[in-house]
Amino acid sequence: MVTIGELINGMYTVVGKAIVEKDKKAIQKIAKEQVEQGADVLDVNTGPVAKDPVDAMKWLTETIQEVVSVPLCFDSTKAAVIEAGLQLAKGKSIINSTTADDEKLNKLLPLAKKYNAQIIGLTLDKSGVPKDRHKRSEHALKIISSCMEHDIPLDDVYIDPIVMPVNVAQPQAMELLESLREFQVISDPPPKTVVGLSNVSQGTKDRSLINRTFLVMAIAFGLSAAIVDPLDKELMDAMITSELILNKSIYCDSYLNAYRKK
Amino acid sequence: MVTIGELINGMYTVVGKAIVEKDKKAIQKIAKEQVEQGADVLDVNTGPVAKDPVDAMKWLTETIQEVVSVPLCFDSTKAAVIEAGLQLAKGKSIINSTTADDEKLNKLLPLAKKYNAQIIGLTLDKSGVPKDRHKRSEHALKIISSCMEHDIPLDDVYIDPIVMPVNVAQPQAMELLESLREFQVISDPPPKTVVGLSNVSQGTKDRSLINRTFLVMAIAFGLSAAIVDPLDKELMDAMITSELILNKSIYCDSYLNAYRKK
Repeated sequence: MVTIGELINGMYTVVGKAIVEKDKKAIQKIAKEQVEQGADVLDVNTGPVAKDPVDAMKWLTETIQEVVSVPLCFDSTKAAVIEAGLQLAKGKSIINSTTADDEKLNKLLPLAKKYNAQIIGLTLDKSGVPKDRHKRSEHALKIISSCMEHDIPLDDVYIDPIVMPVNVAQPQAMELLESLREFQVISDPPPKTVVGLSNVSQGTKDRSLINRTFLVMAIAFGLSAAIVDPLDKELMDAMITSELILNKSIYCDSYLNAYRKK
Repeated sequence: MVTIGELINGMYTVVGKAIVEKDKKAIQKIAKEQVEQGADVLDVNTGPVAKDPVDAMKWLTETIQEVVSVPLCFDSTKAAVIEAGLQLAKGKSIINSTTADDEKLNKLLPLAKKYNAQIIGLTLDKSGVPKDRHKRSEHALKIISSCMEHDIPLDDVYIDPIVMPVNVAQPQAMELLESLREFQVISDPPPKTVVGLSNVSQGTKDRSLINRTFLVMAIAFGLSAAIVDPLDKELMDAMITSELILNKSIYCDSYLNAYRKK
């Protein structure tokens, strides 16, 4: 499992304030904490507060890379903002994200190629988020074939079937799980899969419990990566234990610590 | 999900002592606590301490039924001990368990028929516990066809694919999960499925965490029932949340309490 830390997002008050005030230390603290708690990659999203999001993405990328060396996942709806990060990134970056729309694909896949980056493809288009697994697979196939046309290795492609909140779209959770299984036979090699986990518990009272329960299920259904809060210890414990049960790490009595120290 | 409480088992020191001393109150306390915490059924196992296990099973059955009205799951390797419980049981009992051996099936299925009881069939025979899903399915089919011959409704049959400890048989966990999925298309109607959950964490240090993580996965793969410790609050929270995510109960902010009060 690739754990992508979600906390550097201008949507969060502390981060938004740090971006506006160019407070390096505040951002670096959050970057370091996430990596210490097991994040393999850090998502970077300027959020709605930055007046100049291209400038903000540059500043965030430089600021984060001063203190941690994990790859970054550049998260924006604007290609120019993503490219600002890609230009400065030292590791193998992730582009977050394209949709199945040609317009998006033709803008973002050349960036993935140019910067040798991985890319997340959301299984949606202008008509919205699909209600069932079949439409999700259709979008996934569209994204995969477009990646092949743009000469992006399928190993660099993450398909995101889009998690919906359980309190408003309860039947969607099982559709999403089945999609994760279907994606494993959709191409050879299959694409990787990723979810923005926290969305499942949006607006609920027991967010952490719902998040980790859904994450465990998704991992058992073949999930490769998740955008999560790595400071949620119980979530990380559940993730590490899932990997153990699925035989992806070897049992020892201190398997939780062993995983964290890896 | 049918939650079968595992705590009335003579193997546990407190219960063993209560059986020997015929301490009704001790047994009744454990029975009531389990039901209060969400057990739908109570497993009853005299354990190794009883000099006369038939007599002990009779006493336990009467003792428990004085204070709770949930069905009982009579757990013994001896048909005579199981029948002692069945004779006194007031609800729809469960026989725990037969194997895929003819000798066992021909002894226990007539009991299930006679007492209109449900029955758990373990997917093993004299050669031991299977290492893969295919052999598990083979045993399951044998049990199902034997039940049909004995005129037991398939709705009364639970197949138990046998959970192995993750610290000694790590690859088995995924085989078991896939078996739970396969059993859903093995017959029409499909059999129910059950696991003795705690076995997955036998000999490990983080038992509760491993138990609940595996339970969540098994529920997502179609599990119908589990023999568990219902006093493990985090386990029960994970189970209730799994049911919610799989759309088997309706979301409300207080879904944990709502489930417990059902």
